[in-house]
Amino acid sequence: MEVSNKYVVVKHHIQDAPEESDFEIKSRALILSVDSGSNDVIVKNLYISIDPYQINRMKSNDPSQTSISFAAPITPGEAIDGVAIGKVLVASDNGKFQKDDLVMGVFTWAEYSLVKEESIIKKLEPSEFPLTYHLGVLGFNGLSAYAGFFEVCKPQKGENVFVSAACGAVGNLVGQYAKLLGCYVVGCAGSQDKVTLLKDKLGFDDAFNYKEEKDLTSILARYFPNGIDVYFDNVGGEMLEAAVANMNTFGRVSICGVISQYTDAEKRSSPNMLNVVYNRINIRGFLAADFMNVFPDFIAKTSAYLQTGRLHVIEDVSSGVESIPSAFVGIFNGNNVGKKIVKVAEE
Amino acid sequence: MEVSNKYVVVKHHIQDAPEESDFEIKSRALILSVDSGSNDVIVKNLYISIDPYQINRMKSNDPSQTSISFAAPITPGEAIDGVAIGKVLVASDNGKFQKDDLVMGVFTWAEYSLVKEESIIKKLEPSEFPLTYHLGVLGFNGLSAYAGFFEVCKPQKGENVFVSAACGAVGNLVGQYAKLLGCYVVGCAGSQDKVTLLKDKLGFDDAFNYKEEKDLTSILARYFPNGIDVYFDNVGGEMLEAAVANMNTFGRVSICGVISQYTDAEKRSSPNMLNVVYNRINIRGFLAADFMNVFPDFIAKTSAYLQTGRLHVIEDVSSGVESIPSAFVGIFNGNNVGKKIVKVAEE
Repeated sequence: MEVSNKYVVVKHHIQDAPEESDFEIKSRALILSVDSGSNDVIVKNLYISIDPYQINRMKSNDPSQTSISFAAPITPGEAIDGVAIGKVLVASDNGKFQKDDLVMGVFTWAEYSLVKEESIIKKLEPSEFPLTYHLGVLGFNGLSAYAGFFEVCKPQKGENVFVSAACGAVGNLVGQYAKLLGCYVVGCAGSQDKVTLLKDKLGFDDAFNYKEEKDLTSILARYFPNGIDVYFDNVGGEMLEAAVANMNTFGRVSICGVISQYTDAEKRSSPNMLNVVYNRINIRGFLAADFMNVFPDFIAKTSAYLQTGRLHVIEDVSSGVESIPSAFVGIFNGNNVGKKIVKVAEE
Repeated sequence: MEVSNKYVVVKHHIQDAPEESDFEIKSRALILSVDSGSNDVIVKNLYISIDPYQINRMKSNDPSQTSISFAAPITPGEAIDGVAIGKVLVASDNGKFQKDDLVMGVFTWAEYSLVKEESIIKKLEPSEFPLTYHLGVLGFNGLSAYAGFFEVCKPQKGENVFVSAACGAVGNLVGQYAKLLGCYVVGCAGSQDKVTLLKDKLGFDDAFNYKEEKDLTSILARYFPNGIDVYFDNVGGEMLEAAVANMNTFGRVSICGVISQYTDAEKRSSPNMLNVVYNRINIRGFLAADFMNVFPDFIAKTSAYLQTGRLHVIEDVSSGVESIPSAFVGIFNGNNVGKKIVKVAEE
């Protein structure tokens, strides 16, 4: 049996902000069978995770393009791999996966993905949580928030925590974890609706719309009269400079993302190193993948918070492979609220 | 009895590179007695430590001016305090210090200092080492090198270490500690003579004159074909950017000083945060004063290295209170080789 498989490619390398016209929906016949004894699997994709870091892979040459698999360059015209959830449609006869298994792994921005078994990160057992949670709050975004906050920043109850891109997939969770720990938490976001969401629904102590502020250092001084102890940085640029200027002694900055620079390589951040020395500030970049050792803890605690309703999940779901380019482009324009996901097929 | 006490003041706040004309030698009568039962001490200064960070205290308003005593602003026209070694000339009768005790403490840029006993950091017992060592290799410079390298950077034998201002009071010791640990060590300095000293006398694997290089990122790539694991930063600016661009995964940067910015506030460093994230780089500012817990270890190990001739001491000594302004100005022009000290009186 054969299907027509729609998939998304980037037409050429991208250096600045992506546009929908940079992408193309292609289609190719896929025979729904795999060789006996192989470790090939055909997955019918259900949900695809849309993540800003993918833009770095689409550049022609970028310092982010390392030997780490998820940082490897994407070749224009070829299928784009990314984290997704799917259902096994065809498995080989070696018995590791069965037809209809629900799986999370590195698949493709497509309707169907022919992958090796090693691309499957885990089989999803039935649970009380929606499948999509495995792409966000119970997946790598959640682990980024959990490890980046607890392991990298080593926060204490009562400390003052600032989160940028606080309505993003990671930021909203960092703020909620910080509140659950007993911190004073302020977030910034790019619209009044997001600010309201942060304060009214997610329990942030305060929030502001950075687009309405000229002097970020002053605004942070106003929200943090006692200084910032922990800054969870998703954006880089001027916000990082402003946060460092407001950090307390022994303040910690975890660098999770640099979205302001992803679409503008010139937008470098120049935190004042005099502050870094005299206040003994620690600035540390991290990747969630380095913290698989805390994955069981992360899942146990986060599941408990979800079960008791103390952690809110914010998802933003579009539908259809055709919507992937606009979904992806949209995260650089701040269109998404919370975790951006494209639903490719019905469960 | 009364003496005429010459001392140095800064005439006005300094914002850029200091010049000798910014300073003035003043003189004031000092009565050589202290009140019975007081904790006053009059010290005859022997050696004065000349340190670049003092420039930050001379500015009218700087983020470095914190509540830490040695970061407090210096008022123009008033005596300048700094680390020095002296001999107790007059002690009160409470018995804590005696006439002729040799002491290290926070005294003044002067011939004589009238201070409180709390300003004396320690009494110097006779030892096989010259007194001046207590200002450099066995003092705060040494502790900066020791703690900033071993405690902040947590280096491993065989790792690749880069040191800037490698002929400076701290940098030369960092490089030597790194060699003693078994690291590959490259330093940069500002003259060919210094480069030769680093390679021929101090045992650095290699060294270069940064003033002769246009593209610091490329030159570091050439000296570190396998990347940098540890960067001990004394300078900030473009060198920090170049080092970060060449760091290996899990590289560590300790920020000890930012001398390029001390005399030019606009000279900010913009390390690429994409490197920081994807290579999980840790950038940490520190002050030696936070590491008093390792002081005994530092003294024991460093003394042993000195006794066995495995650590070389590079000092640069001028004479007389009148030479303090030129000595101080000179460290911003790279005039000093190793620890800069002004000898104020014969032992």
